Amino acid sequence: MRNILVIGAGRSASSLIKYLLEHSEKENLHITIGDLSEELAKQKTKNHKNATAIAFDIFNESQRQAQIQKADIVVSMLPAHLHIEVARDCVVFKKHMVTASYVSPAMQELDTAAKVNGLVFMNEIGLDPGVDHMSAMKVIDEIRAKGGKVILFESFCGGLVAPESDTNLWNYKFTWNPRNVVLAGQGGAAKFIQEGDYKYIPYSKLFRRTEFLDVENYGRFEAYANRDSLKYRSVYGLDNALTCYRGTIRRVGYSRAWDILVQLGMTDDSYTIDNSEEMTYREFTNSFLPYHPTDTVEIKLRYIQRIEQDDIIWDKLVELDLFNPTKKIGLVKATPAQILEKILHESWALQPNDKDMIVMYHKFGYELNGEKKQIDATMVCLGDDQTYTAMAKTVGLPVAIATVKILNKEITTPGVQMPITKEVYEPILKELESYGIVFKEMDTLYLGYNPLNIKI
Amino acid sequence: MRNILVIGAGRSASSLIKYLLEHSEKENLHITIGDLSEELAKQKTKNHKNATAIAFDIFNESQRQAQIQKADIVVSMLPAHLHIEVARDCVVFKKHMVTASYVSPAMQELDTAAKVNGLVFMNEIGLDPGVDHMSAMKVIDEIRAKGGKVILFESFCGGLVAPESDTNLWNYKFTWNPRNVVLAGQGGAAKFIQEGDYKYIPYSKLFRRTEFLDVENYGRFEAYANRDSLKYRSVYGLDNALTCYRGTIRRVGYSRAWDILVQLGMTDDSYTIDNSEEMTYREFTNSFLPYHPTDTVEIKLRYIQRIEQDDIIWDKLVELDLFNPTKKIGLVKATPAQILEKILHESWALQPNDKDMIVMYHKFGYELNGEKKQIDATMVCLGDDQTYTAMAKTVGLPVAIATVKILNKEITTPGVQMPITKEVYEPILKELESYGIVFKEMDTLYLGYNPLNIKI
Repeated sequence: MRNILVIGAGRSASSLIKYLLEHSEKENLHITIGDLSEELAKQKTKNHKNATAIAFDIFNESQRQAQIQKADIVVSMLPAHLHIEVARDCVVFKKHMVTASYVSPAMQELDTAAKVNGLVFMNEIGLDPGVDHMSAMKVIDEIRAKGGKVILFESFCGGLVAPESDTNLWNYKFTWNPRNVVLAGQGGAAKFIQEGDYKYIPYSKLFRRTEFLDVENYGRFEAYANRDSLKYRSVYGLDNALTCYRGTIRRVGYSRAWDILVQLGMTDDSYTIDNSEEMTYREFTNSFLPYHPTDTVEIKLRYIQRIEQDDIIWDKLVELDLFNPTKKIGLVKATPAQILEKILHESWALQPNDKDMIVMYHKFGYELNGEKKQIDATMVCLGDDQTYTAMAKTVGLPVAIATVKILNKEITTPGVQMPITKEVYEPILKELESYGIVFKEMDTLYLGYNPLNIKI
Repeated sequence: MRNILVIGAGRSASSLIKYLLEHSEKENLHITIGDLSEELAKQKTKNHKNATAIAFDIFNESQRQAQIQKADIVVSMLPAHLHIEVARDCVVFKKHMVTASYVSPAMQELDTAAKVNGLVFMNEIGLDPGVDHMSAMKVIDEIRAKGGKVILFESFCGGLVAPESDTNLWNYKFTWNPRNVVLAGQGGAAKFIQEGDYKYIPYSKLFRRTEFLDVENYGRFEAYANRDSLKYRSVYGLDNALTCYRGTIRRVGYSRAWDILVQLGMTDDSYTIDNSEEMTYREFTNSFLPYHPTDTVEIKLRYIQRIEQDDIIWDKLVELDLFNPTKKIGLVKATPAQILEKILHESWALQPNDKDMIVMYHKFGYELNGEKKQIDATMVCLGDDQTYTAMAKTVGLPVAIATVKILNKEITTPGVQMPITKEVYEPILKELESYGIVFKEMDTLYLGYNPLNIKI
């Protein structure tokens, strides 16, 4: 038996563990699942004979090292900042390691040690980062193999609610960390490059400079810019591409409505409101509006945000219950962002039978034999239920597949890795297809942002 | 002779030192002026026989302690975070101390030690904080002495250009730290209380929620909210006042135009622009606007900020030269805020013959014998020239007057103090009048924000 140690049995580990268990007979695997909550770890084993659940504390050094020593490969599904404890032990005990998280500077420092010891430390092999790297590099490499030169790369991803569960006016529910949704875009301008020009969008404009995306069978979406569009430019070899843009996908109309909450100041996480516990939803909303003795909160908000009488945005705000004069916030000394998260949770929580959906969309513009062309690649994945969500599948399955392939020596390049080489992405993308994670690639007309190549 | 040690001979020390020298004969004073630049200190002495200039390094402990030991009182005009080194020595050597800066927590900790040793550590006795405290507490104490109850306090201050030197479309020039002007309002919402309701204005709305102020003989001004409107509520004894609001004064139209720069993202100080050195002003402006192959930077900016053809805001932007296609920024890896500061400096620098102006405006609403009344107090101070600016006078003279009065034992209450008691503000305000720093107080109709006291 080959021993796999999975650390962390939270939401995103469901599909990962399921895959490993399903393959445990054929692949001769024993899976040890460690979590702070032994109960949670136990649930995930489903009493499978090839699985062991243990209570596991990452800060218990002797336990951590003992378990890592027993394993052939370690999968860390911990919060990102905790991987490094595991990684250092993996160097000491010469074990491979897999994570779905961004390569931290501390992780990168272990690159030489991993290489010297012939260890594969595979990171960023979840959804985003992960599936995005693999699906993008596949097309980029294909374009290059034909002799083409990539001049435009745009990449979009969104965690959304499945059409069958899309029941509110925002066409959105929380399928992942709600706090990240509330704070999205804060902490600096979104930076990207368009036709060779660097562009910066401040937070106050981010949700009004969206673009639309059409996905076959799923209709129209929109996307706002990520902060880090240039992060992988060099990694993908796109330093000379004229356009690099990454964005987050929402249903049409979400961003324009979200911007109202941003402009009011409700997403601010930098100060606390003293009397927040006793405040009503209506008082919370009113605290961002000018005082008036008789004008209602409603008319003041419509006026200050210029919301016309027939604009559906208004109904989105009403749906959130922002004007409720009796419902109390009930959070002690909370920030506006924390209060908004609570309010949104009441409207946007996934219901027991709701399903989620992942949408990914890449655009590749390239030049080949003097001609400009474009390939669009799209992927839609629907959740099965609230355990095997689209998010859990798209994050966990690539991790699981990579883990087995490293054990089987199909993936062997040592060092701190990302899934950007053919050795890694080709077999994994192929296997993901059998789980419904399929990219449709289409040749389309190249438009770019300057299709006539005008120079003034 | 009584020895006064003045540490720091920068811009704001000019009027302070001038006052002390002019009073040195009558008051029997010797003034030692210490600055990192001995040359600067020497300039300020004007070869006066009662003054000595020395090169002074605050971090040279033996020199610092030797000089403090020789003094009867120490005036620190250093940057705020450096006062504490001086203050600790003043405790050891039992010397009084005066600063124009906010009481820091470290300074506050010395309160007991100062009291035990009978030392006056007078802080916040410049303009803002300083003159604002004194002029406000004078009226508040008078209202209370009559049996009135303060229900509204609003206080505004601005450092502006004098009318005779007001030559640009923004009606504004840099009379103080330009960086603070560029970053004004950032780092958290403006918080205040209006008719009992807490109100929060996010940065993205701050410059559009201004109010107007009329000052006799000087016309109309506007003010945007400070972040700290509630800071002195308890200090002034106004915990039960329904309205507390503090703001910054500008000429009418400044804020609405400034908001364009904010909305574009030009005031962002959180990231740097790689190629800023070689960038033109036009490219800088364009970096905040969507890409288009042929549309001009001008039309894109007008469109995205909805600036109509006949709006004078447009001319304000043109005046800043934001669309200049050849002028280079010339700053290496600068933040947008740093770049904007440089651009503004070319338009807004005080010219050799320009004079500055300080405007302060307080509103006091109160109830007396069941009636609501209001007193407005205004002060305008004009600079004499570029050395004895309105800023230097209003900051330095209160410091100088307090210093002599502490030496003369007219101000004696020991401890870490602010100028909020009659013992301090009465004689100082009186003497300031002879320097043209005069508050006009007017009884006006009480309006507040709910004059009919409507409750719904």
